[in-house]
Amino acid sequence: MFKQIAIVGLGLIGGSIAKTVREKGLAGRITAVGRSAERLEKARADGLIDDFTVGCDSRLGSADLVIIGMPVRLIAAQARSVLKFVKSGAIVSDVGSVKGPVVEDIESCANGDVCFIGAHPIAGTENSGFEAALSDLFENRICVLTPTARTEKTHLDKLRDFWERLGSRVICMDVETHDRIFAAISHLPHMVAFALVNAIVDMKGFSTDILQYSAGGFKDFTRIAASDPVMWRDIALMNRQNILDSIEHMQSALQAVGDAVVREDEAAIEALFKKSRDARRGL
Amino acid sequence: MFKQIAIVGLGLIGGSIAKTVREKGLAGRITAVGRSAERLEKARADGLIDDFTVGCDSRLGSADLVIIGMPVRLIAAQARSVLKFVKSGAIVSDVGSVKGPVVEDIESCANGDVCFIGAHPIAGTENSGFEAALSDLFENRICVLTPTARTEKTHLDKLRDFWERLGSRVICMDVETHDRIFAAISHLPHMVAFALVNAIVDMKGFSTDILQYSAGGFKDFTRIAASDPVMWRDIALMNRQNILDSIEHMQSALQAVGDAVVREDEAAIEALFKKSRDARRGL
Repeated sequence: MFKQIAIVGLGLIGGSIAKTVREKGLAGRITAVGRSAERLEKARADGLIDDFTVGCDSRLGSADLVIIGMPVRLIAAQARSVLKFVKSGAIVSDVGSVKGPVVEDIESCANGDVCFIGAHPIAGTENSGFEAALSDLFENRICVLTPTARTEKTHLDKLRDFWERLGSRVICMDVETHDRIFAAISHLPHMVAFALVNAIVDMKGFSTDILQYSAGGFKDFTRIAASDPVMWRDIALMNRQNILDSIEHMQSALQAVGDAVVREDEAAIEALFKKSRDARRGL
Repeated sequence: MFKQIAIVGLGLIGGSIAKTVREKGLAGRITAVGRSAERLEKARADGLIDDFTVGCDSRLGSADLVIIGMPVRLIAAQARSVLKFVKSGAIVSDVGSVKGPVVEDIESCANGDVCFIGAHPIAGTENSGFEAALSDLFENRICVLTPTARTEKTHLDKLRDFWERLGSRVICMDVETHDRIFAAISHLPHMVAFALVNAIVDMKGFSTDILQYSAGGFKDFTRIAASDPVMWRDIALMNRQNILDSIEHMQSALQAVGDAVVREDEAAIEALFKKSRDARRGL
């Protein structure tokens, strides 16, 4: 499908892309760009990649597709470096979970068509690093692409085809819709899980002993509170306004429950719980 | 261990007690008390119980242990009916998840020693009804007992022994501690899950379609929002003040996240997320 693919940042997602591309024969050559020659050499020795460079250089000039697999906050700057080297007709993309500010930053520096297309594969595991990479990570998962008015259709079609070959179902939406939806269904639940654990830990008389009584429910519920603080700090800052709006909705919803309990309003309490039960069951 | 055990309310928990008692031979006779003769006859035909009565009657007079397996809000009234019939030396207990108002109500009507001891097995499944009963439901689970100053030690020892034979690890605590701990680690997470689903459903432009993007995280997180609205309404009302205190803690914790995001205070955001990550990992 491609003569050469370059992956900038060989973590879990980048590594899994490399593994799947290799297994399905989607590229003649896989080049990785990273910071640690030692780690990249290990990936090369493992057969995950064919060659690597430490930092972007002219070797990106022969790549047909460059995927930036870095934390959201670094993507735009990295994309601007990459764009200096890529050839005409190449596609540059990412795998980040916030799109608005990234795409805006990149497009603000470009003239005419932009070969950067935002991508967000909805996939991951508890682990990180290319050692945890899986060749079926994207199988039957959704990958969201966020083209803009400046995206060339042939680029979009090719990137869609690529993700479909990786096993994913591709859905296109504009960047604003993407960031609003993910603030609600992904970023807010993380903020809530972080806050819930902090709330419990801060309660008078708390000791970790009491968590033994939770029958798994609390543990399942707060699993995502163990997510990477730096990654989530960056997401919170990058998708700031949408996340703040979501938190406000959450506070109102929690207040509605509290108010009904204060009033001992049986019908209201039951109606609130029934509403979420029915919505949850509808999934 | 007992000549006769009576179970008032033969649902998942009551049915699982019957099944385990039968399998381990802990009682000569298992009597059930319920509302529907048809359902009870089915349980008898299945061999789960030996006999039954519809509503409490003098047949409870021969039971050595009576366990009330009913919704929290009905336990105290039911216990008062049961206490009219039980013989001297019998133990009356329950399986409810709120203890304070139940124990207070029962003790307020009694003179001298009280043969009621609150019990809360931390066990359950997604299903309900005795058809879903399991003989290993209590295996390696915790059962909390909440004796008071008026509990007779021989009764407590016997009930502890009973739950240990059902496979559980027994922990004793006072009713206030029980209700405060469970408000935090069980009732609050439910209130939060209900509120989170309601918050998302109420957002502008929400459609159930968007939930397909949630990669399982949101679904895992909100699973408990599909819990029984009536049961949780009753728990909210029965453990009202502790739950309101917990909701207040939760709102402050969420506000702390929101405030740090508003200020774009990187260090504060990271510290808040790191705190919950570390606490969650410590489990």
